[in-house]
Amino acid sequence: MSYPRTDVTVDLVVFGLTAGYQELQVLLIQRAQASQPFCGSWALPGGFISGSETLAESARRTLKRETGLSLSYLEQLYTFGDPGRDPRGRVISVCFLGLVRPDSVALTLTHPATADVRWWTIETTPALAFDHRDLIDTALQRLRSKVAWQPIGVDLLPERFTLSDLQGVYELILGRRLDKRNFRRKIIKLNVLVATDQFRHDNHRPAQLFRFDKERYDRLCAAGIAFEL
Amino acid sequence: MSYPRTDVTVDLVVFGLTAGYQELQVLLIQRAQASQPFCGSWALPGGFISGSETLAESARRTLKRETGLSLSYLEQLYTFGDPGRDPRGRVISVCFLGLVRPDSVALTLTHPATADVRWWTIETTPALAFDHRDLIDTALQRLRSKVAWQPIGVDLLPERFTLSDLQGVYELILGRRLDKRNFRRKIIKLNVLVATDQFRHDNHRPAQLFRFDKERYDRLCAAGIAFEL
Repeated sequence: MSYPRTDVTVDLVVFGLTAGYQELQVLLIQRAQASQPFCGSWALPGGFISGSETLAESARRTLKRETGLSLSYLEQLYTFGDPGRDPRGRVISVCFLGLVRPDSVALTLTHPATADVRWWTIETTPALAFDHRDLIDTALQRLRSKVAWQPIGVDLLPERFTLSDLQGVYELILGRRLDKRNFRRKIIKLNVLVATDQFRHDNHRPAQLFRFDKERYDRLCAAGIAFEL
Repeated sequence: MSYPRTDVTVDLVVFGLTAGYQELQVLLIQRAQASQPFCGSWALPGGFISGSETLAESARRTLKRETGLSLSYLEQLYTFGDPGRDPRGRVISVCFLGLVRPDSVALTLTHPATADVRWWTIETTPALAFDHRDLIDTALQRLRSKVAWQPIGVDLLPERFTLSDLQGVYELILGRRLDKRNFRRKIIKLNVLVATDQFRHDNHRPAQLFRFDKERYDRLCAAGIAFEL
């Protein structure tokens, strides 16, 4: 039984919404270092951990460094460690799930190991380096299963949103259309939404803006709910 | 930014039931190597990963080596990596949650680095090496939150059990008493139990034995349920 050198990275699957909240998108960087594997390929942001940080701190630091982005939500997702997942040797990746709000999706390209950084809608993501496709699939599964036992959307939507916006987030995550009347009845019954006196005026008739009651939202997340759509 | 050597271990929080299914117990080993930290202390079973195994394979191997035990259930729980959690340097622990059935809780002590191995009821666990207390707390939380969205007990109980046995498992995991009539009504409504024509004859009147319908159980686990007790 040998105990060879092991390297540990953090990688982040970061989801955000496109303008107009019409699609779920994921953040990818293009690898630029010719001395490293998968140069030119797209990959999840991430990097090696440093000795003085927690794993979550390493995740936030590498994301900031590669993309300029700060997250509204971060949770540890799963650790990937199959032999052979990295051509450089045994590399364990502690994978995080991150969410950002529409008002903070702007990206900056500052790191020399990164050739490009951009958002990709889930359906259009290119071939990915390493096993990063598995990481995205696992993150999507986590998001989908979360929907069943806690409200969702507080970290993806702006502070004020319409019920159509919220339904759209659920539809994007679940990957299917929901019945409008049924959705509204169930989400209002959860008692985490507060109606504001503001309206959004689109092409058609004005739509009332809502916000989350953060305290009730957190309590419901902690207690777990039964929410079948 | 330095990238010092990192070691990766797997550690296992393994739960089982005591004889008579009266208490939830956790498996601990006593560390025996004077050259290693926490010699003489009790700790979770685990060890360094090897280069040729998946993380789950490393978990099953180290458990078998240190305790002789095979599991009925194994899932990756969480990865612990705070700096300073191990006096030897940066050690990342990928922690697994394991369950065993009452008929396979027998232990064997075979590994020279282990002075003793035994089951401890949750309330009586001694002071633990490293941050292993946090690992147990995280595993208990996971078990408790699982109860809300999938049936539980199939990997902790023997093949045939009474409704009182099953209620006991829920009570042990949730840490509180449940109303008998209410519990029976809700668990039967889940439609995962099959009544057998066998009865257990204890001191008092005979109790009917049930088994899980494994196919329905798995389907329910995959779909997620709403189960409020």
